[in-house]
Amino acid sequence: MFLLLSPLMRLQPQIALVLLSALLTACVSKPDSRKNTDQVVRAIRAVMEAQQAAWNRGDIEGFMDGYERAETTTFVSGDEITRGWQTVLNRYKQRYSSPEEMGTLSFSELDIQPIGTSYAIADGRWQLRRAGDAPHGRFTLLFRQTSSNWRIIHDTTTSAP
Amino acid sequence: MFLLLSPLMRLQPQIALVLLSALLTACVSKPDSRKNTDQVVRAIRAVMEAQQAAWNRGDIEGFMDGYERAETTTFVSGDEITRGWQTVLNRYKQRYSSPEEMGTLSFSELDIQPIGTSYAIADGRWQLRRAGDAPHGRFTLLFRQTSSNWRIIHDTTTSAP
Repeated sequence: MFLLLSPLMRLQPQIALVLLSALLTACVSKPDSRKNTDQVVRAIRAVMEAQQAAWNRGDIEGFMDGYERAETTTFVSGDEITRGWQTVLNRYKQRYSSPEEMGTLSFSELDIQPIGTSYAIADGRWQLRRAGDAPHGRFTLLFRQTSSNWRIIHDTTTSAP
Repeated sequence: MFLLLSPLMRLQPQIALVLLSALLTACVSKPDSRKNTDQVVRAIRAVMEAQQAAWNRGDIEGFMDGYERAETTTFVSGDEITRGWQTVLNRYKQRYSSPEEMGTLSFSELDIQPIGTSYAIADGRWQLRRAGDAPHGRFTLLFRQTSSNWRIIHDTTTSAP
């Protein structure tokens, strides 16, 4: 930058301004590598806590608020891939059609890593506590920072054998 | 850009050069949004074909070339998370300690989507054909474009129930 400032001093002010503003425009659109990782982690944890709370009051649509409302939203588990927010919602509703089947959900061991500037990957454990069983496993979520908040665009969930 | 060129014409050539080179540097480091998705898809398919070929000649280390050699490289399946290239290699070697256990690997239904400029997500199916069984399932791979090639930095693999 200092290479640039000294010749700029010797220019007419309006030329210097045009050049500086062009440079600033070019720089502002570069990825912000200093984006606060802690802020991303906090925002994503909040989305997941809201999902857990929604599930545990039997509100699958509220739980689905954590996912981006897009045709490309993807859920992978077992041998299946499901695409589209509505289709993923329908799958959840079909598999968990009563409070007994829904049980009590808890997420744990969350590990959240930013990927570039507007994506992040979240690994963790899930567990359902139900009257008859306690299914559990792991998940890998890809989050995207949308205009409103961080949203899951891709979810791959494993089950303990 | 035209706003910039006309005042530049009136400057001393060496000043114009300093300014132009600074602007070019600023622009080159911006994400290249025109990066050819087809090119990314081809490069990633090639990495996965090399992995499949390595597995099928009993070469687990060759298969592991598809993964980034980093402490952060992550493999998730069932109830386990494994971190670090060497630890993932050890896990594969332990679970697939003979050609009979390795069987014949095939990947299918690959779907590869770029994420930002230097990441991509690959969904697909895996299947092992072995003398006694044919385990199969799905995977979600996060690839990063490293200095040498595209490499898997995160793998979440599911198994059909």
